[in-house]
Amino acid sequence: MSQQFSLAVIGLGSMGMGAAKSAIRAGITTYGIDLNEAALADLKAAGAKAVGKDCREFASELDAVLVYVVNAAQAKAVLFGENGVAQHLKANTPVMVSATISAEDAKAIEKGLAEFQLPMLDAPVSGGSIKANSGEITVMAAGKPATFAQLQPVLEAIAAKVYNIGEEIGLGSTVKIVHQLLAGVHIAAGAEAMALAAKANIPLDVMYDVVINAAGNSWMFENRMKHVVDGDYSPKSAVDIFVKDLNLVRDTAKELKFPLPLASTALNMFVEASNKGYGREDDSAVIKIFSGIELPKAK
Amino acid sequence: MSQQFSLAVIGLGSMGMGAAKSAIRAGITTYGIDLNEAALADLKAAGAKAVGKDCREFASELDAVLVYVVNAAQAKAVLFGENGVAQHLKANTPVMVSATISAEDAKAIEKGLAEFQLPMLDAPVSGGSIKANSGEITVMAAGKPATFAQLQPVLEAIAAKVYNIGEEIGLGSTVKIVHQLLAGVHIAAGAEAMALAAKANIPLDVMYDVVINAAGNSWMFENRMKHVVDGDYSPKSAVDIFVKDLNLVRDTAKELKFPLPLASTALNMFVEASNKGYGREDDSAVIKIFSGIELPKAK
Repeated sequence: MSQQFSLAVIGLGSMGMGAAKSAIRAGITTYGIDLNEAALADLKAAGAKAVGKDCREFASELDAVLVYVVNAAQAKAVLFGENGVAQHLKANTPVMVSATISAEDAKAIEKGLAEFQLPMLDAPVSGGSIKANSGEITVMAAGKPATFAQLQPVLEAIAAKVYNIGEEIGLGSTVKIVHQLLAGVHIAAGAEAMALAAKANIPLDVMYDVVINAAGNSWMFENRMKHVVDGDYSPKSAVDIFVKDLNLVRDTAKELKFPLPLASTALNMFVEASNKGYGREDDSAVIKIFSGIELPKAK
Repeated sequence: MSQQFSLAVIGLGSMGMGAAKSAIRAGITTYGIDLNEAALADLKAAGAKAVGKDCREFASELDAVLVYVVNAAQAKAVLFGENGVAQHLKANTPVMVSATISAEDAKAIEKGLAEFQLPMLDAPVSGGSIKANSGEITVMAAGKPATFAQLQPVLEAIAAKVYNIGEEIGLGSTVKIVHQLLAGVHIAAGAEAMALAAKANIPLDVMYDVVINAAGNSWMFENRMKHVVDGDYSPKSAVDIFVKDLNLVRDTAKELKFPLPLASTALNMFVEASNKGYGREDDSAVIKIFSGIELPKAK
């Protein structure tokens, strides 16, 4: 990519950090913003031009902003809060919002950005931290063709697949939310199946191996139930993330007046796991809502 | 395999037919049993030594029997009914039962076979008709080591993976049932997600493509939601198969006194689809329980 292109990544969690490092690798002049000093130091060492707790000092040099925070409240704060970046950007600087948020929040952010003449890409992502680090995430984006074109160097650097869902802001977020319905139900279903297998005295490593070689497999089963087999609930993605995301699914269904027989049940399972004290553990810890079984211990 | 090894396959549906043809290809002397004349003719043309509606004429020549019928009632009938094969087999001929049945029924069949001194392999399968035809199914089996050894030529001919779950008859069936929990929930979750996407005016071909390239994918989503995208509900596996299999999951959970938050909901969805008149359609027709959406039509 052109050395002249300058990008700020706001939010250096595992996904944002991966995107920022992929941008650096692709030759993009990259700035990193986070409140976490360790994350800032990590990105600086990886070759960021500058890092900081807000964008004010270099906002006017930017060709694009990538917002990778956790939820809509954080996205609104980093864009429109007291030290928010929107007021400092050149007009027509594209803002790519990759938080998982509701279509309604995406539209509210679009409206806020428009007041500063800033175009938005409604661009949630999927793929996990490994793919983020290798610049191979999947982006499901909505926005104007001109905004896609402006962000082309960034998209090429961070993503293996970019879906153009349409022009209407909110469609990208909705696709991500429907995706999270599947992700959440698949984790909860994996937990239910493995718990039943444990109750039936099936060795869980054998059960796991059968499923990943058969038609009952899912990406989430293969990835997350390995944690159950290993007895390792250190958080890759936490139970509370799926409480949040399945609540977004519920909000979306409420808005559309649509039933959710399975996703509402999966939400209940993650809420129960969180209330039992496992909210910060790996999302596979949803299996701990089941009683009367013995699960593998960490080796 | 040795030309001397003789196998009868009872039940020439898509899975049994695939196994029988794989056995023929591997050089096993193969007999085929079904009530369907067309299936018998098909297998005869593929090289079966003989075919018929029961095994009486060649039962004494067999080195193994493979039972590939649809349910426990049929398995009991072909083994122990009036023209059942068990009474005609040489003592110590292994009987591999690959129907999806409960652990309780598997144990009852083991007991029935023992009266004729016939060892049993409790050996459900997964993989679908394509893998059955290429001899690459997954077998999840329980039985004595000696029975596995007797059936080795058959297992090598029909399966890519053979799991030895343990000696206790019923464990193979239970592993299959836990597997079917996942398969059924994944189809129903795929339907719920695609129905929500349709309600949100997301093009379903785009939604499908996003999911199969992201962490929300499952084997069943990728295979079955393609039918929804294509508007093609011609049955590969029918709604009523999952009514049956998820009822087996329910029976197993009842026996073990274990809750099924998701699988019980998925069962309700398939039962509702069947009662709406879609029981004989492809299992992806479970999506038709959702109202107020427009689904893709067949091209």
